[in-house]
Amino acid sequence: MKALVYEGPGKQAWTSVPDPGIADPRDVIIQVTTAAICGTDLHILAGDVPEVDPGRVLGHEAVGIVVETGSDIDDLVPGDRVLVSCISGCGRCAYCRKARYGQCRRGGWLLGHMIDGVQAEFARVPFADLSVHRLPSHLSDELAVLLADVLPTAYEVGVLNGNVRPADTVVVVGCGPIGLAVILTARLLSPARIIAIDQAEPRLEAAKRAGAEITIKPDEDPLEVVRAVTDGLGADVVIEAVGAPETFELCTRLVRPCGRLSVIGVHGKPAPLHLEDLWSRDVTITTGLVDTYSTPTLLQLVDEGRLDVGGLITHRFTFAGIGDAYRSFADPVSSGALKVMLTRGGGAAPGGELDR
Amino acid sequence: MKALVYEGPGKQAWTSVPDPGIADPRDVIIQVTTAAICGTDLHILAGDVPEVDPGRVLGHEAVGIVVETGSDIDDLVPGDRVLVSCISGCGRCAYCRKARYGQCRRGGWLLGHMIDGVQAEFARVPFADLSVHRLPSHLSDELAVLLADVLPTAYEVGVLNGNVRPADTVVVVGCGPIGLAVILTARLLSPARIIAIDQAEPRLEAAKRAGAEITIKPDEDPLEVVRAVTDGLGADVVIEAVGAPETFELCTRLVRPCGRLSVIGVHGKPAPLHLEDLWSRDVTITTGLVDTYSTPTLLQLVDEGRLDVGGLITHRFTFAGIGDAYRSFADPVSSGALKVMLTRGGGAAPGGELDR
Amino acid sequence: MKALVYEGPGKQAWTSVPDPGIADPRDVIIQVTTAAICGTDLHILAGDVPEVDPGRVLGHEAVGIVVETGSDIDDLVPGDRVLVSCISGCGRCAYCRKARYGQCRRGGWLLGHMIDGVQAEFARVPFADLSVHRLPSHLSDELAVLLADVLPTAYEVGVLNGNVRPADTVVVVGCGPIGLAVILTARLLSPARIIAIDQAEPRLEAAKRAGAEITIKPDEDPLEVVRAVTDGLGADVVIEAVGAPETFELCTRLVRPCGRLSVIGVHGKPAPLHLEDLWSRDVTITTGLVDTYSTPTLLQLVDEGRLDVGGLITHRFTFAGIGDAYRSFADPVSSGALKVMLTRGGGAAPGGELDR
Amino acid sequence: MKALVYEGPGKQAWTSVPDPGIADPRDVIIQVTTAAICGTDLHILAGDVPEVDPGRVLGHEAVGIVVETGSDIDDLVPGDRVLVSCISGCGRCAYCRKARYGQCRRGGWLLGHMIDGVQAEFARVPFADLSVHRLPSHLSDELAVLLADVLPTAYEVGVLNGNVRPADTVVVVGCGPIGLAVILTARLLSPARIIAIDQAEPRLEAAKRAGAEITIKPDEDPLEVVRAVTDGLGADVVIEAVGAPETFELCTRLVRPCGRLSVIGVHGKPAPLHLEDLWSRDVTITTGLVDTYSTPTLLQLVDEGRLDVGGLITHRFTFAGIGDAYRSFADPVSSGALKVMLTRGGGAAPGGELDR
Repeated sequence: MKALVYEGPGKQAWTSVPDPGIADPRDVIIQVTTAAICGTDLHILAGDVPEVDPGRVLGHEAVGIVVETGSDIDDLVPGDRVLVSCISGCGRCAYCRKARYGQCRRGGWLLGHMIDGVQAEFARVPFADLSVHRLPSHLSDELAVLLADVLPTAYEVGVLNGNVRPADTVVVVGCGPIGLAVILTARLLSPARIIAIDQAEPRLEAAKRAGAEITIKPDEDPLEVVRAVTDGLGADVVIEAVGAPETFELCTRLVRPCGRLSVIGVHGKPAPLHLEDLWSRDVTITTGLVDTYSTPTLLQLVDEGRLDVGGLITHRFTFAGIGDAYRSFADPVSSGALKVMLTRGGGAAPGGELDR
Repeated sequence: MKALVYEGPGKQAWTSVPDPGIADPRDVIIQVTTAAICGTDLHILAGDVPEVDPGRVLGHEAVGIVVETGSDIDDLVPGDRVLVSCISGCGRCAYCRKARYGQCRRGGWLLGHMIDGVQAEFARVPFADLSVHRLPSHLSDELAVLLADVLPTAYEVGVLNGNVRPADTVVVVGCGPIGLAVILTARLLSPARIIAIDQAEPRLEAAKRAGAEITIKPDEDPLEVVRAVTDGLGADVVIEAVGAPETFELCTRLVRPCGRLSVIGVHGKPAPLHLEDLWSRDVTITTGLVDTYSTPTLLQLVDEGRLDVGGLITHRFTFAGIGDAYRSFADPVSSGALKVMLTRGGGAAPGGELDR
Repeated sequence: MKALVYEGPGKQAWTSVPDPGIADPRDVIIQVTTAAICGTDLHILAGDVPEVDPGRVLGHEAVGIVVETGSDIDDLVPGDRVLVSCISGCGRCAYCRKARYGQCRRGGWLLGHMIDGVQAEFARVPFADLSVHRLPSHLSDELAVLLADVLPTAYEVGVLNGNVRPADTVVVVGCGPIGLAVILTARLLSPARIIAIDQAEPRLEAAKRAGAEITIKPDEDPLEVVRAVTDGLGADVVIEAVGAPETFELCTRLVRPCGRLSVIGVHGKPAPLHLEDLWSRDVTITTGLVDTYSTPTLLQLVDEGRLDVGGLITHRFTFAGIGDAYRSFADPVSSGALKVMLTRGGGAAPGGELDR
Repeated sequence: MKALVYEGPGKQAWTSVPDPGIADPRDVIIQVTTAAICGTDLHILAGDVPEVDPGRVLGHEAVGIVVETGSDIDDLVPGDRVLVSCISGCGRCAYCRKARYGQCRRGGWLLGHMIDGVQAEFARVPFADLSVHRLPSHLSDELAVLLADVLPTAYEVGVLNGNVRPADTVVVVGCGPIGLAVILTARLLSPARIIAIDQAEPRLEAAKRAGAEITIKPDEDPLEVVRAVTDGLGADVVIEAVGAPETFELCTRLVRPCGRLSVIGVHGKPAPLHLEDLWSRDVTITTGLVDTYSTPTLLQLVDEGRLDVGGLITHRFTFAGIGDAYRSFADPVSSGALKVMLTRGGGAAPGGELDR
């Protein structure tokens, strides 16, 4: 089969690799019909994720068709159309028993990371009894693939860790796909207002379309804006969706006493924590990898039309065009890309070297 | 009357000041029978707390006798022996309505900070209907005064924010009075083990007496010790009770995935937050000023003998000896001081310059 | 002044009574501009609430203008337009310190119950620093008066006690004003669907307008309908808003294992609890009197147009027509009445005997 | 092998049955070394549990040695000494994903109920990857077997559902093995006092030994005693551990406003719920079947000596004496039996008819 293979920092190829096969009774093999690119894939390609070895097939967001099942899989049969979660939980370790699948002692984020992923014609999915979800027939592949990572990450790590409640003032720093998904899912809990912060004007426009009432441009003082609408106190919940020390610092200034700051951003450096100001302010700061425990909830809400997430999808390519797909995704300022979809397409999927 | 007056950085005096009087219908005036010294008092004297003006009477931990009540006080009468909480909450603002008195918009930490305090023969206590507690007759002054600040701070900001649960592994970094009070109150929730860390051997001995099962000396590697007893995972709860960047950093290394880190220390500088390690580890970090909502609970437990806190008291002075009291408290390595008690004594309380 | 006076079972009169005056430093006197009738008022008139003595002025839902303030009230001045909560909390007892004002040891539900109420030209409001809320100028009296009782009761005792979460299936049994307010406020938390049950077709129509997706008529089997949309499991949350043994029993049959049943109805008789079925089903049942801790939250949501509650108001009378108002409210089947508004009107408010 | 077989109401036999074998890849076969008798076993024998068919091997509390493992079991090997939980959870259904194993859609309480149980020489244990726990070598069989059902039931369904907190007043109604286990596990959370109620004097003595400070005899008025120690308010937490309408009614009278009532008793009849008193008292009532999510926590606490539960064990028999064991257990008034242990014994285990 063909798959997108990481060949070391800065190098990738859509190339031929051996077909995956069942390696464990809890595996399934899927034929991938739609995959998506995640910001983490760019980090891997940049060489920032040292535990990923060259030769690894990338990708952890997919919808596909079950083609083979391990002997211990009794809820899925070949032909089922399924969502593959980015997290694979064994279901048995102490973390999984508390639904903290992201911290699973044997699993966690495996696909496209510790084992071959889903930007491929076929993929092996481990612990499939827990991490694969059969899809209702009327839900499109591309809406469903948003449930593999971006929506549960935004909802669990941002909105639920931040404990958004009705009438809260919520600030979202960073309006890429994750930040926009935070805005969409935060609205499920009826905050009084969502304030979006980003450097890029088009992303602020997207934030408005997603439901942010207030957007803050680079030339405005966020603290002033937030205080003006909160009696000078600061935001109830601040959600960091960038992954930089500066945005984290900004978040700590925007949160009110007794407020919450939830970090979703993938950080590569330490950030200063201003304990000299914060020690007496009763602030709660959370970090987290998605557990995907909320996937059934979100799947139901998307399926029933209560969570309108189609606006997150901006670009569509076939696997044959995966090089262009990555180029669009890696340069959102000029492409306007949010989530970029990859589909099998009708015809043959030609491979080829991709340079970045 | 005589009182301990802050006269600018490094200067204090036990000297004559005007008697306090009722200034608001919710005030009471108490004659102080026992007061205690808090680490924060040393910070003020060092000039580290700029909002404290010279001329301020210090102290926020006291037991006394009510001598006068404002017109709106109907639960207290002159002659009542009472505990004065370090926090004065108005009871009406949005924070007080959620029992977050420490963040009260009109009150909070007032005594010995924004208004005159209790290291004095008499003191005015604002919002006394909420911040003053009548004491059972058989509870000694000096046990009761521990409920003014150190015990509720340790319990609320350390133990409850850290969500200590039965069978948890709890690490306490810093074994001064607050850290020891954390050990004592954490035991109410039956952790599997408490691990105490400090630089000073005598404080580790005190930690053992308070109930720590494991103590870690300066020449041991805390991470190794903690991992050895937690299947390599780290502690469920880590409590920072020092107030230094280095101890905060240590705490972030000791906490397990999905664990909690509660900060009690009074910090004067930023600390590095290693988000490059923590972003995916599901860690919760809390800061906080005490709210004193737990004071009735703790008062009951101390009164009934279920919380044995007498070991926190090491030194006793009369007000006349307040200079010696501060000197002992400021040099715990040589004095062995934990909580230092100040009492009226039987005779006259002579004043005089104190230099530090 | 004139006021509606309870004169014993079945008897009431809009008649002259002495003007109220300040009796406590925390009182305010308001001139009532809008009041509403509550189902509890009918219970009192029927003689079902024995602690209400003849001579009592009825009513606990009002908006008015402050005309006089006690000496301890410093946030309100004459001329302020205010909402009066049905619950008066002292703010000092153990219950009030946990925001459980409804169980206040000195207060609780006082107005129109233990002290004279607000269906009057003027009223004395106790503990006004905690129970009176200044209103934004653009919010109408009649929307605001819904915040005195019906909205916080529905939200706190029904929705929050029931712990409604996104994607839940919620059943509301009883679609009078409280049940409809449950539907409106439950939607703040994005349930997958709200199922409304009532005997009266017009109330089911009102439930649909309020946002119920499914309505169950008397000739349908509720259990069958609920199971059909919940994979046979039952509802996540069931809310009893009638107050009869039969409806409570129905609720216990509709709730799924691990589900919640919150009781809002005012019950006059025991109900059978089928522990022979429920003991192993992990069900949580709650009862409650409103605490009004959510009033600021709801006020903000109504004020900002995020909670559209105007549909609850069906009838308007002046105080002069209070007899007609009660007759409409007491016969909702023929009148279609939900919430009935009473206003001062422009002219003189003539009194007169009212018979029921 | 030999096993205790239910042969219809009132009839049982220790008799020969076919050896169990692996039926599913997640099964293990254990050789039972110690089993215990549960009150539910008596209900089955009385014919009160109609879903149990004649021919069923009884028992759901056991410790044993693994002798064979299914192909999907990779954490256990023959020779492991293990605890078998009374609950078998599939780990995949919506309930198991929330650790609500007791409500598992495919499992739940299976052993000695829907499938053959553990009062036998050998037993097949389903979903063993989740429901079997390897034991530390120094923990005795008979302490460990208490973790199969009675301890997690008391702790989860009684103590944790009741949300016992430090300084609470806790009432336990019923001092059989479950009620005593409630007392022991409630103490982990440092209530101010535990009040025990039972009809039998020896059980009150056992309650005192387990840690109850106050015991109430049949000739005392429980309401008077509880009010006397709670300022007239009632208990914070009341735990029903009998299973009769009368004891449930008593519990509803003893609980204070805003208190919690957790039901553990196995009820066979409806109980009257006095909503005419309770509707306004903010009471929370819970029911529940154990989920066994707390088993690792309790296992650690027992193993480390922090939870001293040996006093629950009063009688010991070999399988050969199982008839006597049941007779003792069924007549605790004369035998004084609490938990009754069954062991393989050293020699052959002769069978024989048992009549009850």
